[in-house]
Amino acid sequence: MATLAPNSKKHKVCIVGSGNWGTTIAKVVAENTAQHADLFEQEVQMWVFQEQYQIPKDSKHFDEKNDKGPQKLTELINGLHENVKYLPGIPLPKNIVANPDLVDAVKDATILVFNLPHQFIAKTCEQLQGKIVPYARGISCIKGVAVSESGCELFSDSIGQKLGIYCGALSGANIATEVAQEKFSETTVAYAPPSQDSQQPTPAGTPGASPKGSQLDLTKLNDGVKGAKSSGKVNLTPLPSEYPSLHHANVKKLFHRPYFHVHLVNDVVGVSLGGALKNIVALGAGFVDGLGWGDNAKAAVMRVGIMEEVKFGKTFFGDSVQTETFTEQSCGVADLITSCSGGRNFRCAKMSVKEGKPIGEIEERELNGQKLQGTSTAYEVNSFLRKVGKEKEFPLFTAVYLILEGKHKPEEIPALLNADA
Amino acid sequence: MATLAPNSKKHKVCIVGSGNWGTTIAKVVAENTAQHADLFEQEVQMWVFQEQYQIPKDSKHFDEKNDKGPQKLTELINGLHENVKYLPGIPLPKNIVANPDLVDAVKDATILVFNLPHQFIAKTCEQLQGKIVPYARGISCIKGVAVSESGCELFSDSIGQKLGIYCGALSGANIATEVAQEKFSETTVAYAPPSQDSQQPTPAGTPGASPKGSQLDLTKLNDGVKGAKSSGKVNLTPLPSEYPSLHHANVKKLFHRPYFHVHLVNDVVGVSLGGALKNIVALGAGFVDGLGWGDNAKAAVMRVGIMEEVKFGKTFFGDSVQTETFTEQSCGVADLITSCSGGRNFRCAKMSVKEGKPIGEIEERELNGQKLQGTSTAYEVNSFLRKVGKEKEFPLFTAVYLILEGKHKPEEIPALLNADA
Repeated sequence: MATLAPNSKKHKVCIVGSGNWGTTIAKVVAENTAQHADLFEQEVQMWVFQEQYQIPKDSKHFDEKNDKGPQKLTELINGLHENVKYLPGIPLPKNIVANPDLVDAVKDATILVFNLPHQFIAKTCEQLQGKIVPYARGISCIKGVAVSESGCELFSDSIGQKLGIYCGALSGANIATEVAQEKFSETTVAYAPPSQDSQQPTPAGTPGASPKGSQLDLTKLNDGVKGAKSSGKVNLTPLPSEYPSLHHANVKKLFHRPYFHVHLVNDVVGVSLGGALKNIVALGAGFVDGLGWGDNAKAAVMRVGIMEEVKFGKTFFGDSVQTETFTEQSCGVADLITSCSGGRNFRCAKMSVKEGKPIGEIEERELNGQKLQGTSTAYEVNSFLRKVGKEKEFPLFTAVYLILEGKHKPEEIPALLNADA
Repeated sequence: MATLAPNSKKHKVCIVGSGNWGTTIAKVVAENTAQHADLFEQEVQMWVFQEQYQIPKDSKHFDEKNDKGPQKLTELINGLHENVKYLPGIPLPKNIVANPDLVDAVKDATILVFNLPHQFIAKTCEQLQGKIVPYARGISCIKGVAVSESGCELFSDSIGQKLGIYCGALSGANIATEVAQEKFSETTVAYAPPSQDSQQPTPAGTPGASPKGSQLDLTKLNDGVKGAKSSGKVNLTPLPSEYPSLHHANVKKLFHRPYFHVHLVNDVVGVSLGGALKNIVALGAGFVDGLGWGDNAKAAVMRVGIMEEVKFGKTFFGDSVQTETFTEQSCGVADLITSCSGGRNFRCAKMSVKEGKPIGEIEERELNGQKLQGTSTAYEVNSFLRKVGKEKEFPLFTAVYLILEGKHKPEEIPALLNADA
């Protein structure tokens, strides 16, 4: 598949994180670096938070006679080509190299794919400061946004600012295990660093064709994104011209697989918000479904929810947020559909209404100590909306909060949504 | 609720049809004509195809001692205020009058709500020709479009042309019985007759304010719709100024209920297409779900399906078709979600893959002699697409057809959708 490389250097990729989803994305990316050898170095570094792991007796890798007891997870991954702890049973491409040393893992990497629990972002970025190549580009696969009374911050923006790099986002209707098993799904990648147009992809692959004036030509970069918008907060170091341009078509080649269809957009905010706000909507859908009101009522709540997601984005992040990101992309409507089918927020909300029990009680019983994301997001978003005096403009988000608070009943949802009728 | 009427005449409504969905809409409308007595005559005529009906022994209306045997359905409806045959158990407002005489039912009606099986449209309209008031307006609640090799025709357009009136459309994620039980749902009404703007609703309710030039000011009407588009095929008789203007806010008052939320749009084509094409998408979603590929794969097929619906509308009906009608309205995304949850097309397609049997066999076993709408729509749409040489531009619709034909397997859906990657 490789063609003659027009560039003297290739992109080196590091996956920062190695949980269930991180390892899955490493597999996807490593399959692609092998396939597109003209653009990417084959080897994919995967940073692993080191731990000791004992292969369980029911694993096919367990060898009773030669069992070495607990071993380093990186050594197990590199030896068995399987993340036996976080993605058991899925063979990994041999060009993935698990690395316990964060700084060593990111060395020379021009593309950093962040895929770790959000609470580790700050500390990890601190360790990375000054250790990455200055023209590296990031993609955050971390769902959610940090919402509080004081405002909303995208994880991709936190990463970008902490490291002084551009960071895009990947989100979609993706359950890690299903993607790892190569069951069909789609995802959305938002990638739009401020850029000149001179590196637009052209049919012949020659850079420099059909330049267009960009109003946001803040820096001279080699990212080749048309109409890109910058957060304006970071002074980016240009990607040297020895590297292949990171326009949408090339970014797509890093993630797209026959079983994992990728669509590229410029709207980082929209891609990030969908994956966070959907959890509030899923609670609302669960409440209504718990009442036995049928699929139409549930679909109505979902539809209203998508529209409130759009409004939230446009109200608080400006008009560059695209309605279509929510209504047409995997990260929006499709992710919401999945979450409202069998997701835990939906399920727990439904049980709560059906059994007439507080959702906290259901959460404790069903989630084995884990917490629902939807309830905390609903509270955080409400605290923010109250602060800015906009509770009433988001009747569904507000209704879900009021129901969680016990101030309204699920039966009142239609009336609460109907305030403007 | 009634206010002093600024107009000397009120709208008289007739529901043409009295099945499950027709009777439900009659209930909704009659509740609203009673509530909005300034706009509408309270009495709602409902045309009933006359038949004899024997009240079953398990009905609460059955009186063994005084049983009269089979009776006229209209007399039962008017006596019991219940459509005992087609909507049993639901009390109807007393201002619904069941009428077996079609011509008498539509007498003086300015608003005709069509809600009957599509195969009766032609004959019913023939009987109505010359018998309706010339300035009557129609709303079609009949889902589907007539697609064949020779083209696509909207049912609302057929009605409008046969009667020489404007006809809008109502469609949404609505299961008749659930709406009748006043379970929450939403719907979309498309209503946009060609019109001058002089009757736009204003805060004070005074007509004539803020007129805007309309490029499509074909006739001088009292419908008050801004930016409306005409099919251009009918020369409409203006609605006399004695009647309240039929702008969106007033049309909404005819259908909106606390349990039935209505959104008005201008896009009749989009509203009509969503309800037809969703059945093809539901088959595709069922195929994928039958493979056990999980909710993400299903959501991906649904997302692609919405986008193909949009493309179908824009390609064959022009750019006045609005993407938002499909991606943001109940008639689009919500109706699709409902159909892909428990709809018969989805269920039968899923069983067909799971059991490895042709869908025709499942259809026979599960549907008691009824036919799946999705399969016939998939064949009709494919025959049309082949005729115009655009099969490849609609990879999901085409894939569903090819799978029904046995020429491809459901496992090939990702590859068939990926043709352009």
